[in-house]
Amino acid sequence: MPKLSKTVIPMMDRVLVQRIKPQQKTASGLYIPEKAQEALNEGYVIAVGKGLVTQEGKVIPSELKEGDKVLLPPYGGSIVKVDNEELILFRDSEILAKLQ
Amino acid sequence: MPKLSKTVIPMMDRVLVQRIKPQQKTASGLYIPEKAQEALNEGYVIAVGKGLVTQEGKVIPSELKEGDKVLLPPYGGSIVKVDNEELILFRDSEILAKLQ
Amino acid sequence: MPKLSKTVIPMMDRVLVQRIKPQQKTASGLYIPEKAQEALNEGYVIAVGKGLVTQEGKVIPSELKEGDKVLLPPYGGSIVKVDNEELILFRDSEILAKLQ
Amino acid sequence: MPKLSKTVIPMMDRVLVQRIKPQQKTASGLYIPEKAQEALNEGYVIAVGKGLVTQEGKVIPSELKEGDKVLLPPYGGSIVKVDNEELILFRDSEILAKLQ
Amino acid sequence: MPKLSKTVIPMMDRVLVQRIKPQQKTASGLYIPEKAQEALNEGYVIAVGKGLVTQEGKVIPSELKEGDKVLLPPYGGSIVKVDNEELILFRDSEILAKLQ
Amino acid sequence: MPKLSKTVIPMMDRVLVQRIKPQQKTASGLYIPEKAQEALNEGYVIAVGKGLVTQEGKVIPSELKEGDKVLLPPYGGSIVKVDNEELILFRDSEILAKLQ
Amino acid sequence: MPKLSKTVIPMMDRVLVQRIKPQQKTASGLYIPEKAQEALNEGYVIAVGKGLVTQEGKVIPSELKEGDKVLLPPYGGSIVKVDNEELILFRDSEILAKLQ
Repeated sequence: MPKLSKTVIPMMDRVLVQRIKPQQKTASGLYIPEKAQEALNEGYVIAVGKGLVTQEGKVIPSELKEGDKVLLPPYGGSIVKVDNEELILFRDSEILAKLQ
Repeated sequence: MPKLSKTVIPMMDRVLVQRIKPQQKTASGLYIPEKAQEALNEGYVIAVGKGLVTQEGKVIPSELKEGDKVLLPPYGGSIVKVDNEELILFRDSEILAKLQ
Repeated sequence: MPKLSKTVIPMMDRVLVQRIKPQQKTASGLYIPEKAQEALNEGYVIAVGKGLVTQEGKVIPSELKEGDKVLLPPYGGSIVKVDNEELILFRDSEILAKLQ
Repeated sequence: MPKLSKTVIPMMDRVLVQRIKPQQKTASGLYIPEKAQEALNEGYVIAVGKGLVTQEGKVIPSELKEGDKVLLPPYGGSIVKVDNEELILFRDSEILAKLQ
Repeated sequence: MPKLSKTVIPMMDRVLVQRIKPQQKTASGLYIPEKAQEALNEGYVIAVGKGLVTQEGKVIPSELKEGDKVLLPPYGGSIVKVDNEELILFRDSEILAKLQ
Repeated sequence: MPKLSKTVIPMMDRVLVQRIKPQQKTASGLYIPEKAQEALNEGYVIAVGKGLVTQEGKVIPSELKEGDKVLLPPYGGSIVKVDNEELILFRDSEILAKLQ
Repeated sequence: MPKLSKTVIPMMDRVLVQRIKPQQKTASGLYIPEKAQEALNEGYVIAVGKGLVTQEGKVIPSELKEGDKVLLPPYGGSIVKVDNEELILFRDSEILAKLQ
């Protein structure tokens, strides 16, 4: 998990995620050319907002927590740069699944 | 049902489905050319999310459970690869019917 | 009503319908050419889902039941093939009227 | 009001209406050419559904009843043929006004 | 206010309005050419429906009553002809303001 | 604030606003050419409707009152002419901020 | 934080933000050409509206307060000029995250 100089607290039902980078070398140490590297749709949860605020003002906390490994949608999310680290902010409802 | 190295827990009202592959051989063992194979819109439920979260924060569990045989819509769903196995994540409300 | 090898249980507020085929012969036995056959917008209800699930999780059962004769909308519905029989899945709210 | 061989029971908040045909002859018996006949946007209510089903499953009956004379919107409605009689199914909320 | 041969009862939250025709003559009696006549966006309320029916079936009566002078939106409304008189049906929420 | 011959009572959650005209002369009395005059997005509240009517029929009064100085959105609002005075009707939720 | 001659009170769930300007000089005092200056998506909260008004008229106050450092979305917001200072009005739900 990245050590950030600033704490990023996602607002409402947003979730901050770091995408898992595809393997750059084969098991035997050979470099995999960028084009052959399969874009992974997996990532780690870095931070979770307090939750969805309903029409009645009720807060519905997310199912996710820091450290969870998740399956990401092919589209969506806002890319944000913190300390030159590229992270992504998704809405809780955009995350497809948890991976264990 | 596929043996996956990772457990995939669909989020919210999502359902993980494996599409039933069309028959590749006739009863008498002849290979059916790919074009003649009729795409099946049937599949097995692999995993079910906890359910739809309503505006009041209530959780409405799905009618479906692991192992159910279902009728799939012609479109929709997110294709996800787990251990090179192609699975599909649908919203519970996209599934057309159960088959018994 | 068609004898199906599988039971099809429509999900939620869906209704499975078999469209009534237009008459192919006149009363005196003459064949009506396909173009002259008037597409009927009537059908029989084969199966009914448990009903619409509201935002509060309440289930509102359909007004329809197996065997009802209904008036179908000109568009909409998902065509599904079961045992080579072409059936149509409509949302309960798409059905125009009951015929008695 | 048309004598129909089948009873048509509109579903939910639908209303079955027969459009009033424009006068084909002047008072003194002269035929009015079709183009000069002014399309009337008035009709009679033939049958009324049980009413709008709300998100909580409550049924809100229509203000209209069989025999009411109504003002029709220029667009909308589904044309249905029953015993070769052309009728129109509107949603209750599409009807503009009652005429007395 | 126009004397109509039929009573028009607007449905639900609709309001029947007669648009005020622009002045055709100047104070000193000169005819104002049609192009110079400024289209007025004012009118009189002729009839008011029972009111908006909410999702719970509650009826919210309109703020308007017969005879009110109102400010009309530049667009919207359905033109209806009653006894050759051109009137307009607006939704209650389309009316901009009352004029006193 | 303009003296109007008619009272304009905005309907529901509407607010009647008069846009503040940009300065036409510099402090030392020089005329500022129209193009150089910076369009102001500020205005005074002339009148306020009774408020937003919710789905349950509850009325939510506006935060604004007659005489408030407000920040206007770049778009939206309906221009209305009263006694040749150009005023603008906004929805309460379109007003950006109050200025004190 | 800018000293404004007027107090700007955002309406409802709006938040007034001042965008943090990118560094114009390197640590060693060299000027960074405008094109090389990386647009920052960070800003300070100047003022916060009373909060979101729900369908029932309940007010849900914002999570943010004056002085908070926030992460801004790449799009959205209304640019407003106060005392020649360029500020931005966002809806509370548009703000991506808080930075500490």
